[in-house]
Amino acid sequence: MKIKVVEPVLKANRVMAEEIRRYLGSKGVKLINILGSPGAGKTQFIKRTLEQLENKEIIGVIEGDISTTFDAEELVSLGVEIVQINTKGACHLDARMIKQALEQMRLDGKKVIFVENVGNLVCPAEFPLGEDLRILVLSLTEGLHKPLKYPLAFRTSQVLILNKSDLLPHLDVNPSIIREEALSINNQMRIFQLSSLTGEGFSNWMDYFQNYLSTL
Amino acid sequence: MKIKVVEPVLKANRVMAEEIRRYLGSKGVKLINILGSPGAGKTQFIKRTLEQLENKEIIGVIEGDISTTFDAEELVSLGVEIVQINTKGACHLDARMIKQALEQMRLDGKKVIFVENVGNLVCPAEFPLGEDLRILVLSLTEGLHKPLKYPLAFRTSQVLILNKSDLLPHLDVNPSIIREEALSINNQMRIFQLSSLTGEGFSNWMDYFQNYLSTL
Repeated sequence: MKIKVVEPVLKANRVMAEEIRRYLGSKGVKLINILGSPGAGKTQFIKRTLEQLENKEIIGVIEGDISTTFDAEELVSLGVEIVQINTKGACHLDARMIKQALEQMRLDGKKVIFVENVGNLVCPAEFPLGEDLRILVLSLTEGLHKPLKYPLAFRTSQVLILNKSDLLPHLDVNPSIIREEALSINNQMRIFQLSSLTGEGFSNWMDYFQNYLSTL
Repeated sequence: MKIKVVEPVLKANRVMAEEIRRYLGSKGVKLINILGSPGAGKTQFIKRTLEQLENKEIIGVIEGDISTTFDAEELVSLGVEIVQINTKGACHLDARMIKQALEQMRLDGKKVIFVENVGNLVCPAEFPLGEDLRILVLSLTEGLHKPLKYPLAFRTSQVLILNKSDLLPHLDVNPSIIREEALSINNQMRIFQLSSLTGEGFSNWMDYFQNYLSTL
């Protein structure tokens, strides 16, 4: 039943996502879609990444939330351009919402737009937004087996952030098992273990991201 | 767009959920729907609750996962009857799945069936399953503002479990703020702060649950 109802929606979304990718490509801008469970630390991950960038003006942020603007408020002091989407109940962002958000954003001088998706490890994985890169933020506090229990998000993401590593000494969680499980689903995945709160392990991610930026 | 597509599905689900409630009522059985984000600790919460019950045979468990049987395996040593649902991609359980699962479960002698929903703080909230009680498990590691960011799950749950309290000393999280936010969404909510891992705070929940059982 679910598949029958949703398939035309997914197809229409894929078509619009491709339009967005082509449009942004013509402007020299890449979209990075960031997904993860509620409380995985997506906003803090974006915040620390922006703090460590010298040329912040090349970045824009689209914040997706069902309601509230807490996450956008976290980032506003950084001086980057932010567009808030409130989905009013919807469990994921879709390409149509991104198209509307992009109409409100200055693209001149931008190289990358971060999209923080709704906190949800399931539905956002089904809806490409025209992104060049998909990053999955997983909190180590979420425990084992998430790659096997929620495979689509892992299969479709190129980067996995194992966040909140500062809490590892207090958890009964072996990150090696999560890495193995993630690679069993997607053996191309780049994995970074870090704490967006303390900054530990963050330099490996920033090296990767600076290298990504240098290729644009 | 989303509303238009989904509304007939929601309505059909509500009708079937009512059928399930009436059917279980005629058998003297109540359903308890347990929801929360991936890694909130739903399985460990069910496990410790069952461990602390003397008369486990009155409980059945329906385990909902997109894929895998890890959670059911966690519970199997407790000797309760478990039926596994794999949703094969779907982001929530629906009443039709519960109806099918109930056909595989012995109801004689049971008083309560726990349903562990798919790890998702959004979609399961929209799909009643015929439950008498809805319990939301939130890990304190998920941080602040979840009640305001994901209001439907909080509005429709009668009990809120603030789980993983053993990690509180290591978190920059004030649980009073989460309580206030939750009560601002749903002022009838019963809130229990506990650790399903260490058992701290668990006795308050068990008192409530034993009292609930005694009314059946």
